[in-house]
Amino acid sequence: MTKPTLRIGLIGTGFMGKAHALGFTSAPRIFDLAFDLELHTVADVTAEAAARAQAGFGFAHATTRWQDIIEDPGIDLVSITAPNALHKEMALAAIRAGKHVYCEKPLAPLAADAREMAGAAEAAGVKTQVGFNYLCNPMLGLAREMIAAGELGEIRGYRGLHCEDYMADATSPFTFRHDPAGGGALADIGSHALATAEFLCGPITRVMGDCLTVIASRPDGKGGSRAVEVDDLGRAFLRFANGASGSIEGNWIATGRKMQHDFEIYGTKGALAFSQEHFNVLHYFNTADPRGRQGFRRIEAGPDHAPYGLFCVAAGHQLGFNDLKAIEVAGFVQAISGRTPEPFNFRKGLRIQTLVETIQTSSHEGRWLEVT
Amino acid sequence: MTKPTLRIGLIGTGFMGKAHALGFTSAPRIFDLAFDLELHTVADVTAEAAARAQAGFGFAHATTRWQDIIEDPGIDLVSITAPNALHKEMALAAIRAGKHVYCEKPLAPLAADAREMAGAAEAAGVKTQVGFNYLCNPMLGLAREMIAAGELGEIRGYRGLHCEDYMADATSPFTFRHDPAGGGALADIGSHALATAEFLCGPITRVMGDCLTVIASRPDGKGGSRAVEVDDLGRAFLRFANGASGSIEGNWIATGRKMQHDFEIYGTKGALAFSQEHFNVLHYFNTADPRGRQGFRRIEAGPDHAPYGLFCVAAGHQLGFNDLKAIEVAGFVQAISGRTPEPFNFRKGLRIQTLVETIQTSSHEGRWLEVT
Amino acid sequence: MTKPTLRIGLIGTGFMGKAHALGFTSAPRIFDLAFDLELHTVADVTAEAAARAQAGFGFAHATTRWQDIIEDPGIDLVSITAPNALHKEMALAAIRAGKHVYCEKPLAPLAADAREMAGAAEAAGVKTQVGFNYLCNPMLGLAREMIAAGELGEIRGYRGLHCEDYMADATSPFTFRHDPAGGGALADIGSHALATAEFLCGPITRVMGDCLTVIASRPDGKGGSRAVEVDDLGRAFLRFANGASGSIEGNWIATGRKMQHDFEIYGTKGALAFSQEHFNVLHYFNTADPRGRQGFRRIEAGPDHAPYGLFCVAAGHQLGFNDLKAIEVAGFVQAISGRTPEPFNFRKGLRIQTLVETIQTSSHEGRWLEVT
Amino acid sequence: MTKPTLRIGLIGTGFMGKAHALGFTSAPRIFDLAFDLELHTVADVTAEAAARAQAGFGFAHATTRWQDIIEDPGIDLVSITAPNALHKEMALAAIRAGKHVYCEKPLAPLAADAREMAGAAEAAGVKTQVGFNYLCNPMLGLAREMIAAGELGEIRGYRGLHCEDYMADATSPFTFRHDPAGGGALADIGSHALATAEFLCGPITRVMGDCLTVIASRPDGKGGSRAVEVDDLGRAFLRFANGASGSIEGNWIATGRKMQHDFEIYGTKGALAFSQEHFNVLHYFNTADPRGRQGFRRIEAGPDHAPYGLFCVAAGHQLGFNDLKAIEVAGFVQAISGRTPEPFNFRKGLRIQTLVETIQTSSHEGRWLEVT
Repeated sequence: MTKPTLRIGLIGTGFMGKAHALGFTSAPRIFDLAFDLELHTVADVTAEAAARAQAGFGFAHATTRWQDIIEDPGIDLVSITAPNALHKEMALAAIRAGKHVYCEKPLAPLAADAREMAGAAEAAGVKTQVGFNYLCNPMLGLAREMIAAGELGEIRGYRGLHCEDYMADATSPFTFRHDPAGGGALADIGSHALATAEFLCGPITRVMGDCLTVIASRPDGKGGSRAVEVDDLGRAFLRFANGASGSIEGNWIATGRKMQHDFEIYGTKGALAFSQEHFNVLHYFNTADPRGRQGFRRIEAGPDHAPYGLFCVAAGHQLGFNDLKAIEVAGFVQAISGRTPEPFNFRKGLRIQTLVETIQTSSHEGRWLEVT
Repeated sequence: MTKPTLRIGLIGTGFMGKAHALGFTSAPRIFDLAFDLELHTVADVTAEAAARAQAGFGFAHATTRWQDIIEDPGIDLVSITAPNALHKEMALAAIRAGKHVYCEKPLAPLAADAREMAGAAEAAGVKTQVGFNYLCNPMLGLAREMIAAGELGEIRGYRGLHCEDYMADATSPFTFRHDPAGGGALADIGSHALATAEFLCGPITRVMGDCLTVIASRPDGKGGSRAVEVDDLGRAFLRFANGASGSIEGNWIATGRKMQHDFEIYGTKGALAFSQEHFNVLHYFNTADPRGRQGFRRIEAGPDHAPYGLFCVAAGHQLGFNDLKAIEVAGFVQAISGRTPEPFNFRKGLRIQTLVETIQTSSHEGRWLEVT
Repeated sequence: MTKPTLRIGLIGTGFMGKAHALGFTSAPRIFDLAFDLELHTVADVTAEAAARAQAGFGFAHATTRWQDIIEDPGIDLVSITAPNALHKEMALAAIRAGKHVYCEKPLAPLAADAREMAGAAEAAGVKTQVGFNYLCNPMLGLAREMIAAGELGEIRGYRGLHCEDYMADATSPFTFRHDPAGGGALADIGSHALATAEFLCGPITRVMGDCLTVIASRPDGKGGSRAVEVDDLGRAFLRFANGASGSIEGNWIATGRKMQHDFEIYGTKGALAFSQEHFNVLHYFNTADPRGRQGFRRIEAGPDHAPYGLFCVAAGHQLGFNDLKAIEVAGFVQAISGRTPEPFNFRKGLRIQTLVETIQTSSHEGRWLEVT
Repeated sequence: MTKPTLRIGLIGTGFMGKAHALGFTSAPRIFDLAFDLELHTVADVTAEAAARAQAGFGFAHATTRWQDIIEDPGIDLVSITAPNALHKEMALAAIRAGKHVYCEKPLAPLAADAREMAGAAEAAGVKTQVGFNYLCNPMLGLAREMIAAGELGEIRGYRGLHCEDYMADATSPFTFRHDPAGGGALADIGSHALATAEFLCGPITRVMGDCLTVIASRPDGKGGSRAVEVDDLGRAFLRFANGASGSIEGNWIATGRKMQHDFEIYGTKGALAFSQEHFNVLHYFNTADPRGRQGFRRIEAGPDHAPYGLFCVAAGHQLGFNDLKAIEVAGFVQAISGRTPEPFNFRKGLRIQTLVETIQTSSHEGRWLEVT
């Protein structure tokens, strides 16, 4: 019995373009998807990059005009890994063309744009996905499942981080990530901390932000310097609809930290602790363990934590970053088939932008704000 | 050559009283102090407790009237480990009697009281010490020394915690720690996080607080329940005089956590990470390490980190909690001799109370406040 | 410019078959290989398994006769992931047909068989690869490079482990892994510890073995039980040609351990420590670090550690088990092109079998043996 | 009710002398001992050292003749922390004088001497103690208790280490620790690994040793060099009377390691892992934990693990090395009172020497030996 085919167009061939391509390649080999996937066309701004990606990733066609992908009626799904500022135009075009859209995070620099995109997708009835792939980790799935099942009891406190050091060097140049419209550490990586917080604990209702520019200017690449207006680190206090409180920090000048996407969550019956620097492990404290035998358990990801078992036969082997991307692809493809809901659609991507902007505004105004 | 003798009076014989007594006993055996220490009189509310402490700790005399210690002209130093609400009366009486005073933290429930105490001590010219003994850890000394020497470069970010779970059980009864005047997690253990933050990074100038009561009432021990008004967890955003920003959290309902007095500090040249759950270790990242060989170093406390070598001959042996208390005693005794400044006097204890109250007020008012 | 094509035949579609298929799929997308790879034919014993793998892994053809792959002149490379007992017959047939052979470990149950296979491959001039993929970890490459460059000075001691618990349950049935000819923990996973030891420190010259059967019999799957003769754990003392001594342990009844493929290596100038349970990290101690600042550094795998950067843009993202397999595939394909030597050919696979058997014999005889 | 007094004589005032003195001081303040302890006389070879210790440790008398302590009928207990070569003479003299003897490890350089000492003590009816204080750790007590109670099921495997780097520098001079009679890494620190192994798993019945001299000569302190005959690292395979097998390694040239006194123990129902570098923690794996929730639990020492609660009020505060010594002193004093058996008497000290020598002989002869 043959499956229908889903034809993929990919825009952008950098790190994330490669990660998408690998995801499209490995997902159907690891999961039993509803579709066969065909790598149809890849686009990049230079013919050389496009051709290299065509050959390297195994696409049938290459182009320097991303519009070719939009205009090709044979393409079903458009993956957007171009610079953030282009997400909106590309996604709206793809949606108008009736295609499903898989867009790297952030969905758009501004929540208003993201709202327009989410609305357009819903109106058009296409399926969408935003690339918050850390959520695809089976151990985050386990954490969410444990919380939902009440294994931690009532949630009382949350602390989330996403700290790295890739902008710690003051001599690293001004880039699109420093653009006043939508840039900054909170948007770039604090957004992951926010996504994880809501993934685990549900909606955030109020925030108090604290966003700072620490490195006031950066080289402009032309021998001069350019003032930076976006935050290098952004913190927030949080209130959740479930009654819990928490905090997050996004920080891209956290010297020495490479992937401190960490959280701790405290409940009346138990607690969880996690670090993305060792993302195949979840630490679990159970207050029901006998006295004198209590302690955080180091649970290693294994076949008990789906879909890990589709990748590796036993615990301890470990998934890697690109495996998370394959899980993300699989989830989106299954959603397109209608079997499952969209894992993280544009509406959810908008939600993250809304949280980011509310925190930024709160910081600017120095007061708590409702998240609307 | 004989040393002068410093005669000690101890008020309170619980866990902290014992820790003080052990400190007075071991400090002169480990350090070359300017004084011999004589355990003169111990006081507790019951004759039985006082007598047990007299015998157990090796005091010459016991009493049920703490005033006996104040009134005895032979006593030079009064250690106060009685309940927080009594600190002020006892300390002021001791100061008036011209005695040096070693008071457990918090110095007093309210900053106004602490201010009066600090002023009285300064006016009387006696030496004082507040028991923030985590600061006595050689690895915190190392961290402070590294920061002061510029080994981390300019400080850009700080994150401090003090989280435990000793109040996580909602059925544990209302105690003096829940008293509206001066109680709560921020005052009780968040104060440690604040003390460490200023110890390492210098003065905090502005704060934005977030303090919450999570367990609304607790058993009153008489079959009923009593409303709790103090915070179960308190968070704050911080600004330091050195230009850095940071955050702290004090949390006594942090399920599973026993001593999460942790910090991370990020500078332009390096970073430090620490956890009190493994307090003989400091993690250090040096950006000057060669590419491909960088990483947080796990520095084990050893004789290179004074005064560790006075306790143990080699790294890896490890100090314990009571050793920190011995270091605290030694520091105070040396300060009494005039050899060194007071390590953490009443003025500094007041400072912590001021920070706590400013954070609480900030939380209540929902806005940033200057620390004055 | 088009590349020549290497056509792949895969025998076996279980966990390892899937891992090979994924490796052949992702390697050319991640690495710039000398060949295009074509997934030509997959074989398994049942038509259903073969067809499922054909569709799932993306092979053009499927068969239930592995001989079809051997006999097809269009196939250049044969991947063997069938049960160990079949490796020899299949590999010799493939070699005779002039095909390159990629065989899962162990190369053969007995060293004598492995020797015949290695000799045949060399005589035929085909390239070979045995699947010791833990060696493909960039952090093991880093360790080897540091040792070779003298960064650790002279090597003085080595300790290697490979401990898991997949046979710890005495009620788990007798399998081919318990077969007297070639089974046992030392052969199955101790072999990894031996491979890593020689990968890092060079040839082992003498061994003293200690191999034990702990679970004397296991269910035979027919309601009875079957005596186990192979070891459940195997230890060895080692002497290396470089003058160092060491030890290894292979243990498949190590309750709670999932992937304790660990090592420590001590040199005159430094030391390394590693655990496969966190395989994107290498711990490095440098005796040249200044006093008071020394400690094991936790180096996170990153783009400085080739070929990590081809998979992920930054440190902290982490490779997974299947990425190691892609690196293994890439290394073999490049070797087939003649660009690089074979990373771990049949001669090296034979070497591991020789070490295993010498240790087993040494254990049986209770005395040190030369490794010949 | 007054207690009888036990008068202490201490021989030696170095690191271990200080540790003993601190133990005698703090033990009666922490434990409810059957005796009051009186620090009577301290002896060292120079008058200056003796006087300094008298004042520093709080002894009533000082002497340069250790025989004064033996000859003083008022002294009940003699603590010996002099160089190893003197242990025998001093201990036998003390025993002959009817005194209880507390001797630092190793009991004597040679088992024959230790045997004579143990026999003499038993004949004289005095109580003895050898200073294997790592065994006094509450977490080792917990481990032993769990094993004895069957919480791990049947024990199947053991792996113990004691590795440090204090002799890793080839330019560090020849000392008494390199003396052919009784020196070496196995005797000095491997002995701790052996003591822990038997403490947890019971008697070792057979051994196969592997002892090596790595640094062939060391500076003699007179401008020349002196050949080293003792081992720099000693390994052993072990068989236990309970049927389990295991291994240990003692290594004093383990670059970077400060206190790697570690063990793992695997049973049919659970496993334990421990490192002295973090000795307030025991890791415990319970196979009865539910699927998907299994993992090593990090148990923090606390009041549930006696006698921790006598030192600290709550988990996470942590004991230090000197606290272990206080526990050792308390155990010995209670044994002298007859309340409890001797925790680690000369007979047990002899046992360790016997194990060390059997391993050394086994290594020399290259064959397994029974431990007799």
